[in-house]
Order: sequence, then C-alpha cells, then structure tokens
Amino acid sequence: MADIYEQSVEFHRKNKGKLGVESRVSVKDKNDLSLVYTPGVAQVCREIERDVSESFELTWRGRTVAVISDGSAVLGLGNIGAAAGMPVMEGKALLFKQFGGVDSVPVCVDLHSADELVKFVTAIAPSYGGINLEDIAAPICFEVEDRLQNLGIPVVHDDQHGTAIVVSAALLNAAKVVGKKYSELKIVISGAGAAGLAIAQMLLSVERESNHKSQILKFSNGVKVADVIILDSKGIITAESGGLKGEFAKITNLEKKAGGLAEALVGADAFIGVSKGGILTKEMVKTMTKDAIVLGMANPDPEILPDEARAGGARVVGTGRSDYPNQINNSLVFPGLFKGLLASKATRVTVGVRQAARDALANFIEPVEDKILPSMFDVGQADAIAKAVAVQVKIEGLERK
Amino acid sequence: MADIYEQSVEFHRKNKGKLGVESRVSVKDKNDLSLVYTPGVAQVCREIERDVSESFELTWRGRTVAVISDGSAVLGLGNIGAAAGMPVMEGKALLFKQFGGVDSVPVCVDLHSADELVKFVTAIAPSYGGINLEDIAAPICFEVEDRLQNLGIPVVHDDQHGTAIVVSAALLNAAKVVGKKYSELKIVISGAGAAGLAIAQMLLSVERESNHKSQILKFSNGVKVADVIILDSKGIITAESGGLKGEFAKITNLEKKAGGLAEALVGADAFIGVSKGGILTKEMVKTMTKDAIVLGMANPDPEILPDEARAGGARVVGTGRSDYPNQINNSLVFPGLFKGLLASKATRVTVGVRQAARDALANFIEPVEDKILPSMFDVGQADAIAKAVAVQVKIEGLERK
Repeated sequence: MADIYEQSVEFHRKNKGKLGVESRVSVKDKNDLSLVYTPGVAQVCREIERDVSESFELTWRGRTVAVISDGSAVLGLGNIGAAAGMPVMEGKALLFKQFGGVDSVPVCVDLHSADELVKFVTAIAPSYGGINLEDIAAPICFEVEDRLQNLGIPVVHDDQHGTAIVVSAALLNAAKVVGKKYSELKIVISGAGAAGLAIAQMLLSVERESNHKSQILKFSNGVKVADVIILDSKGIITAESGGLKGEFAKITNLEKKAGGLAEALVGADAFIGVSKGGILTKEMVKTMTKDAIVLGMANPDPEILPDEARAGGARVVGTGRSDYPNQINNSLVFPGLFKGLLASKATRVTVGVRQAARDALANFIEPVEDKILPSMFDVGQADAIAKAVAVQVKIEGLERK
Repeated sequence: MADIYEQSVEFHRKNKGKLGVESRVSVKDKNDLSLVYTPGVAQVCREIERDVSESFELTWRGRTVAVISDGSAVLGLGNIGAAAGMPVMEGKALLFKQFGGVDSVPVCVDLHSADELVKFVTAIAPSYGGINLEDIAAPICFEVEDRLQNLGIPVVHDDQHGTAIVVSAALLNAAKVVGKKYSELKIVISGAGAAGLAIAQMLLSVERESNHKSQILKFSNGVKVADVIILDSKGIITAESGGLKGEFAKITNLEKKAGGLAEALVGADAFIGVSKGGILTKEMVKTMTKDAIVLGMANPDPEILPDEARAGGARVVGTGRSDYPNQINNSLVFPGLFKGLLASKATRVTVGVRQAARDALANFIEPVEDKILPSMFDVGQADAIAKAVAVQVKIEGLERK
C-alpha cells in the first residue's frame, strides 16, 4: 500500500490536482464576445429573471452537479477538514465526468453544524442542477439531507444512498447466484453510520422523514428482505440507542436477538460490513446459513478477508477493494444516477427512484459467484441506470414543472 | 441590439451554457483508479491534513478561482437574483480561462446580507485559490470585501478594482496622448457606486480599511491625480452623503465645488462615467479644459456618444462598448490579475498590486488617440499583467508561507 500512496501523492503534485474548467465555446473576436458576454448575455439574464426554470436550459446549471463536503467523514480518515477533503471530491468529480458525462464541481466547506450546512447548500443551489452530499458524518448527514429535500433539485447523500443502492443490487444478484429469495433473506449489517442505516432503509423499502433532529420511518412499496439486524460498535442496536438508530431498532431485529456480532449472525443469510477491518471471523461465518453471502466493505481492510470467509462456508464474497473479485463500490451508482436525474429534470429522489437504479444495476449482467455486479468500466452501465432513473422520475411525476 | 439579444439567447439555449468541467487525467482501468481515487488518494488527503498549504499543490485549489455573485447588481440590470446572474458569471469564467488560462467556477448564491455573504465565502474558501466577487451591490460590496481580506487567499471585487485598474490605466495613457501630467489631472467621476468609489480610491492612491460598517481611508504610496470630484444621482457628494461616500467627500473636491455635473465639470481635465446614459452634454464638455478626456462607460448607452463628446472639444474619448474605439472593459484586467496572484501564491491584493497591474496594462502599448489601451485579443496582454502582479506580490512579501 505504501507504494500506491507515494505514487498517488507524486501524481497529484505533478498534475496539480485532477480537474479543470473547459470553455464549451470559443471567443475569437469582439463579435463572439458580444454573443457570449456583454451585451448579448443581458437578455439571457432577463429570460431567467422572468422564468427561473430557464436557468437549467440557458446556463450550465441543467447539466452540472455540486459535490459538497464538510470533510467530516472522509474515506476512513475521519474529520480531516474541508481542504483535506478536496482530493476525494475532485476524484469524485472526475468519475462523474468520465462515467456519466456529468459536469460537477467539488465544493469543500468549512462548516460545523447541520444548520450551517443546510443554509450553505440552500444558498448555492441556484448554481447547480443537483447536489451530491459527500463524506459528511452521521448523525448530521441525515438531518442535513432530509431538510434539503424541498430545494427543487435532487439532493443525495452518496455515502448513504449510493452505498445502499450498490449493496442492495449486489444482494439481489448474490441471492440469485445462491438460489435464495431476496424477500426471504435475513441480513446482518455491521455499522450504524450513514451507510449502515441507509442500507437498512433500502433493504426494508423505508422512506425517511425528518423534522430537524427527529426522524420518522415509513414503509414504502417495493420488495423487502425478511429481516435486518443492525449493529453499532456496542452491539445490536435497540430502541435505547436513540435518534435514527432507535427508530430503526423498532422495525428491525424481529426475533429480538441481543448481544454482539456472534449472536446476530446465527442463522443469517448475509453479512454486510460497513464498519471496521477484521471483526468477522471464520467461526462466525460458520454459524450463518448454507451458501452465505459476505460483503465486508471496510476500507482498506475488510471485515473479513475473502479466503477466510470462504473457509467459513460463504459462497458469495465481496469487499470494497479493487484487488479482490466483487468490488462493491458506489462509483457504480452516482454517475448514472445523476445523469438520469439531470436528464429527467428531477426535483428529488424517492425510494422508487433508488429502487429503479438498484434494479438497473443488478440487471445489467447475468451474475456469477465472482461477478455479482458490473464493473464501472463495463460500457453502458451508467447509461442503463440513467435511463431507468429517468423513467421512474417520469412515472412518479417528480419533474420540474 | 434586439438581434444580438435574440442571437445570444438562442446561442445559450443551443449550447446549454458555456462552461464545462474537464478531467485533466484519464481513468482507463483499476490501476488508474487506485492512483486518482481510492486507495491512493487517502494519502493525498493526509498530506493536506498535516499541512494545509499542500492543498494548493495537490488539488486544483492552487489554480482555481471562484467567481461569486449574489445577483444583486448584474450588468445594468439591477437585483435580478442568483439564478439569473449565472449567464454573466459563466461568461466571466470563460474569459478567465481563455485570456488568463485560469480555471474558475461560477457560484451564484441566494443570500441577502453582508454577514451571510462573508460567512458563505469564508466557508467555501478552502476549495479555491482566490475569490472574484462579482456584481454585488453597493454599499454591501465594500463591507463584504473588506471583511474578507484576512482569509489567506486574495479576495477581489472586480466591479470595484478591475474597473479601477482599467480606468486608471486608460487615464495614464490618455494623459500621455494629450500631453498632460497624470499627477496634475482634475477628474470628475459620475457615479458613486462600487465602480465610482473604487476608481476614486485608485486615482488618489488610497487604501481602505473597514471595521464592519464603518470605513477608514488612508493615503498610500504611488502617483496620485491632482483632484477628484465624485457625483451621485443627487450631485457632488458631501460629508453628509454618509458611509463610504462621506469618507471620500473628505478627501476629494479640494475646491469645494457645489452642485451637479455642470458645475463639477468646469475646468476638469477628464470625465469618468460609471452612471447612466445620456447625462453628459456637448455644452458641458466645452467647459472642460482643452484636450479633455471623456470616458463614458454606462452600458449599453454611454453618458455621451463619442461624436458629441468630440464636438464638445474632447480629444480622447472612450466608452464601455466594443463598437466604438477605446473600449474600457475590465476583461482587460481580471484574467491577468488572477493569473499573477495564483502564480505568486498571493494572500491578498494591495494598492501596490493594483498599481502594478495598472502600469503593466498601460505600458503594454504605445497609446494613440483611438487606442489608449490594448485589446484583450492582443497576445501577451494578460501575461504582462500577471508578471507585474507576481513581481509586486514578491516585493511586498504577500506570498503564502
């Protein structure tokens, strides 16, 4: 790993980052200038003043997303601050462009409360067609995202929903591979942060509503798994865990198990790890059902190494890493998701839209044990998601008027 | 004008704006991905967490400027709102790229007070190497700019200082053409908004300091004109005008003239118009000194048409328009200014830096009556400013440590 770290720093130093701004039109003479700038541009401004929806048509707004982070939960590095988050946000913008053809701007902000973040995003919203919130720590991330849902443009916290979409797609296909019904799966999620709770939300087809600090969960349409058990660092969450965890405790763990990971896993069909490396043992995997599914996505060290998981009897094994089969990475989702949202002029994202993205991703390939999901380099993958998302936006009537 | 307006709207609709984001590196396979994104990027983040100045070297920050507007004073259109300001900000970003090779991001924000703007810009500063404030109405613009001067990156309100630099360069060269000494010029400025007061500040070599709402003016080094008279819509400003106008009244109008434009102009060497069309008459120009300089920059209709001004005896005549000789446009300044600021790692802009930009712009050509300034299409113009700015930043020790 040391090598790739050093190489990456040198690469970034040499290139001075990864992103640039490009002119889509050239200005060769005064005539060009009067068309793209003054005096002509004054009329373009007036058209938007008259009808603000024209801003999506007459400027870059309709094809541009902001990737906004406060640097409070970057990769596995924790709260490293705004400036230090930029290499990841710039990388994200790169992937938006390369895989989705979506223009996006990395925005790292030095802010430290939900109120401040909500105000900031609301203020900047007129510049962009969508907002990708990124690497914002729980529990602030839930409140921030929920309070921004009426902004008139889609606001998606990718660490939550990008991850939830890719994990649920992986589970759909893994279930197919091992010959189990998705709707009968009993699943254990290790990690009750942004990703863990959003995955539970997706697997149970739940919609979340927030009124500032307190949240309500409502079951929605769509296929659901049989049961989910969520664990945080203290063990299986309970109603006493408080906040959003407490709400999830009420609708999960139907068998009322108590204890830690070992207790939770007995008889489970799948393990989803969004916690920390090395916490899952071969012995625990042995207590799961036959042909278990083990997706340990902690980075850089997964909850269990693939060989160990297989030795414990797991049949489908995935990680977050690119050097093992079945990399579960939300880069498979966000380029296509936002491409579809922008193209369909979506104002928000619903459970239905996320399910459409999930199904398009899962259905893009015929899964086998060592390839349950497409690779982001598979041509057409992002477009398939984009199309499905756009169709669903239309079905649900989520377009801008 | 109707034609260019319609053409511009169609042009913008067809192109969906003017700006895009470009990848400076390509991601062809998983190896590339591990270099530009996870896992390699984690080390880049850590380097910046350790030493935040590395953010300028390892990300796009060191070569990227934010063009931030609240849409409160866009062109001559007034307070048209954030979304409607975007066509201008996008155009500005285009010119940054084309003429200065500077990457910049248009940011239009729905904010309505100096406090909110200061908070917003402070929050977003870790993402960029410089801030170009744009089309923010007076008097808020003064307070906002002044309160942001210790941000650690240069913050420039272009409507003030871009305009002041280009106008003072034009006056330097116009004085040369008519054989008068710049330091002996008596100048009338019509318009006491952002541009008018900043021009006065530049012509008198004054530095401004603000403590929130109240400002102090301090004379600085550098060549000064003999006198300036500033008018707002009510006539010559006085100490009773209040605020920053009141402060300027104390150091201008040494002859204590009273009244309106006609009274102010008697015996003046130059007229600077940043007010509104048609207010200056041939008869008024006749009361100015021989070989008067008349720069009427109201848009789209100048304070006086060039033929009228000449008929009144003016020898050097300029406007803001591209269809007359001597277009006075701050597009001549900001690309080179920010190129120099970024290259020299400047933390702020001073009177000395603005004067260096002014002199480089003026000295780029040997002026004649119908060409007192370079055209922005003159190759090397922006670079000349950039070099002079970078030298001055070094002389004054304004670099980031």
